[in-house]
Amino acid sequence: MFTKVLIANRGEIAVQIIRALHELAIQAVAVYSVADQDSPFVQLADEAICIGAGPAVDSYLNMQAIISAANLTGCQAIHPGYGFLSENATFAALCAECQLTFIGPDPAVIEKMGDKAVARQTMQALGMPVIPGSVGILDTASAAVTAAKQLGYPVMIKAAAGGGGKGIRAVNNDHELMIAFETAQQEAQVSYGDDRLYLEKIITAAKHIEVQVIADQHGTSVYLPERDCSLQRQHQKVIEESPCQALTTSERQQLGELVASTTKKLHYTNTGTFEFLMSPDHQFYFLEMNTRLQVEHTVTEMVTGVELIKAQVIVAAGEPLPFTQADIKIQGVAIEARLNAEDPAQQFRPQPGRIDQLLYPVGTLGVRIDAGVVAGSTISPFYDSMIAKVIVHSRHRATAIRKLQRCLTELSITGVKTNRHFLTALLDTTAVQTGETTTTYIEKSFLKGWLTDAQTKISSAN
Amino acid sequence: MFTKVLIANRGEIAVQIIRALHELAIQAVAVYSVADQDSPFVQLADEAICIGAGPAVDSYLNMQAIISAANLTGCQAIHPGYGFLSENATFAALCAECQLTFIGPDPAVIEKMGDKAVARQTMQALGMPVIPGSVGILDTASAAVTAAKQLGYPVMIKAAAGGGGKGIRAVNNDHELMIAFETAQQEAQVSYGDDRLYLEKIITAAKHIEVQVIADQHGTSVYLPERDCSLQRQHQKVIEESPCQALTTSERQQLGELVASTTKKLHYTNTGTFEFLMSPDHQFYFLEMNTRLQVEHTVTEMVTGVELIKAQVIVAAGEPLPFTQADIKIQGVAIEARLNAEDPAQQFRPQPGRIDQLLYPVGTLGVRIDAGVVAGSTISPFYDSMIAKVIVHSRHRATAIRKLQRCLTELSITGVKTNRHFLTALLDTTAVQTGETTTTYIEKSFLKGWLTDAQTKISSAN
Repeated sequence: MFTKVLIANRGEIAVQIIRALHELAIQAVAVYSVADQDSPFVQLADEAICIGAGPAVDSYLNMQAIISAANLTGCQAIHPGYGFLSENATFAALCAECQLTFIGPDPAVIEKMGDKAVARQTMQALGMPVIPGSVGILDTASAAVTAAKQLGYPVMIKAAAGGGGKGIRAVNNDHELMIAFETAQQEAQVSYGDDRLYLEKIITAAKHIEVQVIADQHGTSVYLPERDCSLQRQHQKVIEESPCQALTTSERQQLGELVASTTKKLHYTNTGTFEFLMSPDHQFYFLEMNTRLQVEHTVTEMVTGVELIKAQVIVAAGEPLPFTQADIKIQGVAIEARLNAEDPAQQFRPQPGRIDQLLYPVGTLGVRIDAGVVAGSTISPFYDSMIAKVIVHSRHRATAIRKLQRCLTELSITGVKTNRHFLTALLDTTAVQTGETTTTYIEKSFLKGWLTDAQTKISSAN
Repeated sequence: MFTKVLIANRGEIAVQIIRALHELAIQAVAVYSVADQDSPFVQLADEAICIGAGPAVDSYLNMQAIISAANLTGCQAIHPGYGFLSENATFAALCAECQLTFIGPDPAVIEKMGDKAVARQTMQALGMPVIPGSVGILDTASAAVTAAKQLGYPVMIKAAAGGGGKGIRAVNNDHELMIAFETAQQEAQVSYGDDRLYLEKIITAAKHIEVQVIADQHGTSVYLPERDCSLQRQHQKVIEESPCQALTTSERQQLGELVASTTKKLHYTNTGTFEFLMSPDHQFYFLEMNTRLQVEHTVTEMVTGVELIKAQVIVAAGEPLPFTQADIKIQGVAIEARLNAEDPAQQFRPQPGRIDQLLYPVGTLGVRIDAGVVAGSTISPFYDSMIAKVIVHSRHRATAIRKLQRCLTELSITGVKTNRHFLTALLDTTAVQTGETTTTYIEKSFLKGWLTDAQTKISSAN
């Protein structure tokens, strides 16, 4: 087993990785940017090395600086967390060249899954159902229009290099497609340095369902109960839960077994997540595979008792998985809400700034708050605006929702605006309470009414 | 169901009760002493009423003030928490007279179990095994010596009105008994206003095992997996866990069924805990029954998923228990450590004072921190010195211990001395790691060596 591991990340996920390492009796080395020098994860690590200025490109994306820090401190492995270099095949390969274990899958599979068009073709070839889409890369808007006509509108323009919501556009007709194509190309170029696009048919009234898998180097591949991440805004997840209320036990098992067997066919190791759209008639369509830990792995941990970061480290060290498929049982329901420093009234614009007062509703059965900031911390303009993940677990879904509402209401924070009231209002809706949400629910149904209501309340309060 | 409930308690348990009420959509009214005016539980309540000065006798034991506060605010019920008035039959009866539901059992059974000698006789008559002891109350030291000779030394002097460790003395011969008897009488008089004593034979190398039960008003009585509370100092619990590693499944079931059936025979409702000593040959001896929620109910919640405070409120309102015996399954292992503001080097003397900095290791799967104080709070000399209960839950006992050590190590606190290093050192011992602890382990085996070690470390550091 490793004795020292470097965490190539920041914020709450760095905190979680440090804790997992400590529980495995492994020393944790943090790397941080100047902007993060006072962050809790820096304090918590056994050693911490500053690797550059605030902008991620100067620090958390600076491969050489990170590799140097690992060598300097005598680390044997690097945990990339999520975001930043976590799905960067070049970085994973560089780690291997430098005799450092990259805690994640092989560079080859990262690369294959990172190219969303290749991933789609690979999965289709392995027998995974995919959303009907264009064949190969579309170089021009007119080629896209031809492909769209064959698929039938509405269609989604997607970036081949994508993931994380950038470069994605839904269009309903030729005209919209012609306009959006170039914008999407530019956005893809800026976000990924790669402007290649393709089209997918839009599955309407769909749920976003994803299945987490973890595989060791000895051929064991275990799938975990699915997550329902349908509550999204601008293709960013807002609230996630596990399991999905709409799935039957046999659907869950079928989907899980398909994922586990595909993982084996890919010779995939470590964690990964297969994302699907589920149509109203419960047809599943593969969207993409995330070759890393996800933000919402927490709800999976809560309903199964499996500690995923520890499992990642264990399998990366070449040890067998410490559990089998038979050990994975669903206990109750877990729900996560992402508390962000953002202003819903201003198109959810991030609200960087200093958090003056911050009291998390800690304690009580079934409450978990994964946070990277404390009172006095600063939400930096350089990174995402997440304050904390508020995660609850209960035997029944209704009590879990009530518990999450209680936690969000109880939470005390001053200094920055947050999306807290947006989250509690969302949890109050019939759609959420019955679990009948789709990926367009927030933007097409909830948001306008809520913003108007919130505006009215503000006006009448004045 | 109630719409408004008063909490006749303070600190972490008041926080927990307020949260349970909020999750049940019930308004929570706090009562507080002047010393507690800035406490988190006061902030968290929907209404809060000051009921007197710092000393408990002027506030948290002031029955009339509490009843008045309940009437004034339109409460329908009172939750007494633990300690203070929670096992006071007079208070429970007064609540009933004032048309307030006391969230706990009937006054008659509180009284019967509150008198430890009567409780012992009652349980013996109901077929519960008890520790061989003196018959009735011993008025004089010489009567005690006669009784001790029949039982055989060592014997324990116990207060009939007792519970909580006051008025208890272990003696090995006539001489020690003669000396200790009067002191115990005085201590019992001071602590409980009742100086009656009795003797019990001491079961050596025993474990403290207790079984929590909850019963509704419709005849359903459910037992929960036992807790091992063997790690005690001065008869105060230090670390508790559930389940007990030493019990077999059939022992667990037999003991649980005995407890549940005895609960029914007593026509007992709400929560209660049967405390036992278990001898090395796994014989169980009834010690006493606590007719209230216990500090360590948390570990039971963690391994079963049952929310006990909510269940207390539900059954007190006359509703049926929301679960059956068949719903109670043990998931993994939970361990609690009581973090106190006290100085182990000075006989664990409480260290009241202001907590300057306090960062709980919140987040991460299986970690729960129930606390009544935050940074800036004051540990008052009027009440117990508990800062927080640090509770962990894991699939396996070894990982739970490691997690608890990690949490205690990570915790950051300045301003008051704590027992943190005592707890981590205790968790490091072979006895704790193998689960082979008995009620005398800390005082007879661990403490001397640890204090010497700690002293040596301090000396060599100077």
